[in-house]
Amino acid sequence: MDPEKGGFSVDQLMELAGLSVAMALAKVYSKDSFQRVLVCAGNNGGDGLVAARHLFHFGYRPVVHYPKATEKLLYKNLRRQLENLNVPFVENLDEELKTATIVLDAIFGFSFRGDIRPPFDEVIKKIKGSKLPIVSIDIPSGWDVEKGNVNGRGPEPEMLVSLTIPKESAKFFKGKYHYLGGRFVPPEFAKRHGLVLPEYPGIEQCVDITNWNGSNL
Amino acid sequence: MDPEKGGFSVDQLMELAGLSVAMALAKVYSKDSFQRVLVCAGNNGGDGLVAARHLFHFGYRPVVHYPKATEKLLYKNLRRQLENLNVPFVENLDEELKTATIVLDAIFGFSFRGDIRPPFDEVIKKIKGSKLPIVSIDIPSGWDVEKGNVNGRGPEPEMLVSLTIPKESAKFFKGKYHYLGGRFVPPEFAKRHGLVLPEYPGIEQCVDITNWNGSNL
Repeated sequence: MDPEKGGFSVDQLMELAGLSVAMALAKVYSKDSFQRVLVCAGNNGGDGLVAARHLFHFGYRPVVHYPKATEKLLYKNLRRQLENLNVPFVENLDEELKTATIVLDAIFGFSFRGDIRPPFDEVIKKIKGSKLPIVSIDIPSGWDVEKGNVNGRGPEPEMLVSLTIPKESAKFFKGKYHYLGGRFVPPEFAKRHGLVLPEYPGIEQCVDITNWNGSNL
Repeated sequence: MDPEKGGFSVDQLMELAGLSVAMALAKVYSKDSFQRVLVCAGNNGGDGLVAARHLFHFGYRPVVHYPKATEKLLYKNLRRQLENLNVPFVENLDEELKTATIVLDAIFGFSFRGDIRPPFDEVIKKIKGSKLPIVSIDIPSGWDVEKGNVNGRGPEPEMLVSLTIPKESAKFFKGKYHYLGGRFVPPEFAKRHGLVLPEYPGIEQCVDITNWNGSNL
């Protein structure tokens, strides 16, 4: 959805997307068993930073690995919001993986193309090797948006939170839990683009689509 | 909370505040009985415009009375987001009050001082005369932030949705339902300012504080 045409600002959409990710994660992984969420953010991993903040308010204790922070104001502000909550930004991934209970993969997303460059090649290798459950946002990191986990280079997450509408690669997702978040698509936009959206229950910001057979999948 | 220090943008906070208002309203007034929500927005009634959008997504059919739209980009965008959903902007308040089931009062808020100027004097008079249940955001319109409904000039809402923390005038609220929204206050900020906040349940964005006896009230 084009933020310009919709009248949405990027940070407004990112806020709603990140909130829905945090809510979806919390529905599947209780804070009692999965309090330590290791959020791995790419240089544009704003959804992950927003999700980390909401997870904190929900009672989780997130830590953020953000090895290549972008200097854009939006991302600096998202970082500041987390610093005001004393959410730690951590460097040593090996150490953190020992105490983390779950990994939120916000490394690459919709706009990823090409090769997995440093330092993210190592990050992905490490989270894959950790055997921790991985929750990926929109598209698992390193996956091709259409063809999925080409050459097995990305993780095979246990949970996928698609945003606005599942992407084509979601066909190849073999994990246990598939949720949709980003409840802000205008019905006319969906109609014009031939998108069939699942129905969100009540006032929820995410919906379980694990067994949903929408025409987009 | 100062958005600058917190690293939050105004539209980001407004999004979370408006969402929590819509969620709180939906918890009390079901869409089956209260589908037609008449949102009365003042010239800075951004929370109301955001709430209207989320109410639409929740299955309500909001209409917006916005007699003095501000030309600031943020508000133009909030308006555009509603237009993309075909949410009607209505002029004739008398007509709308005949079919509305509930009024969301987003006319004045925290920054209101002084007299109730046209056209809002008439708007407030009409919604008061309608006998419809009124839901006010943060502070009922026309109320003094500390002294409450001075001279009875404002409405006596059935529901109040306080934002971030109940304001002093909430002591004078006599309606049935009091909720708190805006789950984004950093614990250290609350501590520094001596704010005692109620605990939000689970992943909720609002909390029922009707019978809460926090030290702020």
